[in-house]
Amino acid sequence: MSLVKFVSREYKSENTIIEVGDVVFGNGKFPVIAGPCAVETENQVLSIAQSVKKAGAQIFRGGAFKPRTSPYSFQGLGKQGLHLLGKVRKETGLPIATEVLDVENFDLVEEYADLIQIGTRNMQNFSLLRRAGRSKKPILLKRGMSATLEEWLMAAEYIMQEGNKNIILCERGIRTFVKHSRNTLDLSVIAAVKKESHLPVIADPSHAAGVRDQIISLAYAAAAVNADGLMIEVHNNPEKALSDGLQSLYPDQFTALMGKIHSIHAIAGS
Amino acid sequence: MSLVKFVSREYKSENTIIEVGDVVFGNGKFPVIAGPCAVETENQVLSIAQSVKKAGAQIFRGGAFKPRTSPYSFQGLGKQGLHLLGKVRKETGLPIATEVLDVENFDLVEEYADLIQIGTRNMQNFSLLRRAGRSKKPILLKRGMSATLEEWLMAAEYIMQEGNKNIILCERGIRTFVKHSRNTLDLSVIAAVKKESHLPVIADPSHAAGVRDQIISLAYAAAAVNADGLMIEVHNNPEKALSDGLQSLYPDQFTALMGKIHSIHAIAGS
Amino acid sequence: MSLVKFVSREYKSENTIIEVGDVVFGNGKFPVIAGPCAVETENQVLSIAQSVKKAGAQIFRGGAFKPRTSPYSFQGLGKQGLHLLGKVRKETGLPIATEVLDVENFDLVEEYADLIQIGTRNMQNFSLLRRAGRSKKPILLKRGMSATLEEWLMAAEYIMQEGNKNIILCERGIRTFVKHSRNTLDLSVIAAVKKESHLPVIADPSHAAGVRDQIISLAYAAAAVNADGLMIEVHNNPEKALSDGLQSLYPDQFTALMGKIHSIHAIAGS
Amino acid sequence: MSLVKFVSREYKSENTIIEVGDVVFGNGKFPVIAGPCAVETENQVLSIAQSVKKAGAQIFRGGAFKPRTSPYSFQGLGKQGLHLLGKVRKETGLPIATEVLDVENFDLVEEYADLIQIGTRNMQNFSLLRRAGRSKKPILLKRGMSATLEEWLMAAEYIMQEGNKNIILCERGIRTFVKHSRNTLDLSVIAAVKKESHLPVIADPSHAAGVRDQIISLAYAAAAVNADGLMIEVHNNPEKALSDGLQSLYPDQFTALMGKIHSIHAIAGS
Repeated sequence: MSLVKFVSREYKSENTIIEVGDVVFGNGKFPVIAGPCAVETENQVLSIAQSVKKAGAQIFRGGAFKPRTSPYSFQGLGKQGLHLLGKVRKETGLPIATEVLDVENFDLVEEYADLIQIGTRNMQNFSLLRRAGRSKKPILLKRGMSATLEEWLMAAEYIMQEGNKNIILCERGIRTFVKHSRNTLDLSVIAAVKKESHLPVIADPSHAAGVRDQIISLAYAAAAVNADGLMIEVHNNPEKALSDGLQSLYPDQFTALMGKIHSIHAIAGS
Repeated sequence: MSLVKFVSREYKSENTIIEVGDVVFGNGKFPVIAGPCAVETENQVLSIAQSVKKAGAQIFRGGAFKPRTSPYSFQGLGKQGLHLLGKVRKETGLPIATEVLDVENFDLVEEYADLIQIGTRNMQNFSLLRRAGRSKKPILLKRGMSATLEEWLMAAEYIMQEGNKNIILCERGIRTFVKHSRNTLDLSVIAAVKKESHLPVIADPSHAAGVRDQIISLAYAAAAVNADGLMIEVHNNPEKALSDGLQSLYPDQFTALMGKIHSIHAIAGS
Repeated sequence: MSLVKFVSREYKSENTIIEVGDVVFGNGKFPVIAGPCAVETENQVLSIAQSVKKAGAQIFRGGAFKPRTSPYSFQGLGKQGLHLLGKVRKETGLPIATEVLDVENFDLVEEYADLIQIGTRNMQNFSLLRRAGRSKKPILLKRGMSATLEEWLMAAEYIMQEGNKNIILCERGIRTFVKHSRNTLDLSVIAAVKKESHLPVIADPSHAAGVRDQIISLAYAAAAVNADGLMIEVHNNPEKALSDGLQSLYPDQFTALMGKIHSIHAIAGS
Repeated sequence: MSLVKFVSREYKSENTIIEVGDVVFGNGKFPVIAGPCAVETENQVLSIAQSVKKAGAQIFRGGAFKPRTSPYSFQGLGKQGLHLLGKVRKETGLPIATEVLDVENFDLVEEYADLIQIGTRNMQNFSLLRRAGRSKKPILLKRGMSATLEEWLMAAEYIMQEGNKNIILCERGIRTFVKHSRNTLDLSVIAAVKKESHLPVIADPSHAAGVRDQIISLAYAAAAVNADGLMIEVHNNPEKALSDGLQSLYPDQFTALMGKIHSIHAIAGS
């Protein structure tokens, strides 16, 4: 890890605290970011947002620009999606987390987002990282699907070196030989990040597992390993979701989960 | 999963309950198996056993026959080690879990063990599986380092087909590209096993992580995903352990862990 | 593979032939692209280019924009590097292959390059793929470090769907648990690509292995599996290379390799 | 690699030459071991043996004891299978390579085999390795499905330390995330083994790929990386094979392959 500089514990020993609106990451709490994979309609996002807020989520997530394996899959609503996310914030007061796919749309996303997500496929899109480094908004940097810890921290270093110190790391599962889940959530990496870096690190069990039963378990596990928060997909109608329906929780499942997860985190983190 | 028969949920819908002495797996509790990697001396095993028992462990583990990558590493005390494990049971009342490496020593291990472990390297040692299938003692079947869920359940099928219905599965980490831990604990597999099979499944974070900080976190995570128990390495003097010292918890760490882990399991499993 | 359209064998049964200057890919020949990892100085590129041309290389490669894990590593000479590549073409007549990292610099790279490379870290940079799809120049699309065959072909589909039919695929090694090489060259994928797609596919053993001895062997292997060509790193002074020195062949090694590789390809491909 | 002793190049700098009957491994030649996955009937083995002998194979392979993932799959003919292999040797003069699964049947297999195979699932069955170390027959040690180079050489060390110096290593594909082939043949490991050890190392593309088209390519690749030989599955009636039919070559394919493979090896190895 010798080459990591600003990101390293050696450079800064105390934990970095990051504020997204009123929500704080890195201070020992366990904020939850929830919402659908993709923004689809005004009704959909408002309904989900009200539901997850009621259950205790503190940030709303939803994709307006979607990175899809196939060019023939739904690519997101783009600017219109951002506009709907703006409405969600206005109606619910929840800060918005949404993904940026490229430098071209960075200004636009930056205008609407409270937390700008750089996804797993872009973890080593260095131009995008540098642009994020010049943003005033906090960045949620997902781990690449087959990134080592060092490569991930180096990606954060690209951002930090340009001046933006507000980075939240997010573990979302790594690619393995396993067939019973989409990816394998690497929960060891939470302790490993905390040892090497002062940045907060959260977990996203939805993309890791891709299977509903497993996601709920892994969400509890993320709390148990003392991650600094959670990002999770919730949809009011998963069967009809335009993307990732199979891995979205029903609102009731999310509410049940929220009834337990902070207790687990409180025990593990004490 | 079409070929799994006796092991499948379809064959038997209710959870299988397995008794190891007075200790019960599969009934919603979270029994903990603890002890050193290898049996070294009488003092060592008795000291650790008393310490882990006091902290709440219900089964003592310790290897008399050790599967070591190198022929030049400590291979275990063999029969003498089993004898010392017998003393531990007599002194503490704790049932004994220990590994069997081959058919040749099966009778011997069977005589001393209350729970017979088949290790990750032997998960597809089919002759050993068949012999285990003819044992009256319960079997702890670790997942192979790169075994799919199907291969693992098929290994259990080999045992069950011979008549032994008492099998506890144990996830112990899979081989991945990751460098910050020895293996990657696959916690998704716990929910996946429970869906496909009626057998109880526990987790071993010590071999998965190989790094002390990560192990404690992963133990909590195992409770949080509602595993049916835990297997963990504890040593009274990890620095001088003849094997796996770096991944053994200090007794104080284990005691602290035991103070929290059942609470986490109770919340997650409710 | 049901979603791949323009890229699929079903859509177009005969092999696609791609011309880069006078060099032809996909017609049963085995053209070799050679040169240093990064453009460093005029002397360096001219010296290497003359040497590899003499040995039989038909395209010169060299990076002006370098995707580096660390922001503190040499990032390439940028526009000046492209200018030097232009000189190489003028002096030697060799077409130029060079990497583009982002949409911002696409026009610039397009101006200088005869074959535009999209690297492993950008295989799912969908904005970049779409821009490449609107280029008149042929594209060299490297496989992502942990991309499945389907994801790779889908990335090509993004390009093709925008109108650019001239895509050469390039296998460069996948991420595995292995420690004796940097990545594992997946030579099975060559036959698998040819079955699913009409596009030519070449191999890059330099990035796969990262170790000189292995690279020479793997280059022969690429010819033996009937790949449509080779991309390989050669440096006149590997010890002083600003990047990837350890994996660059010496000019003499390259010359020796070129003396054999077409014979191997001729036998395997007949 | 510090712990490998007898197996290391440091201990013995010149290549080890191993004789299996009249067939020599490690002297720069490329002997081919061919035959069906499993021995099924006398007609089957004799027919295949005559065919592969005519095409140039020098050793006949066939499994009498089969390590199968499922207990409900064909487990091999056992002793009767060995007896049929004995007939093959008598009729054709070809030496016999066959797998041993356990210590219990070692004496029996040893009686019939000229080359005793230890399979991928048993690479760390240390009791079996030790027994092999006390055999007078040469051992074919397959690499474990997720074994590092060090673990593999250490397994050979277990054998050699007991006195048997005649070990041929066999790369047979490693487990990766890849879906287009059963495993990924790691051809880098051939050069890596030769650097670390004096033992000969061959490749088995049949188990690596599991798909016929890919196998032929990978066989040529094995010759191109200068492996010390090849092991390959051939069946006279793959559609009706009791195991591994999909990955067995037709006799005609094998004959065509044999017409080219030595030429490739001669060029690459010169």
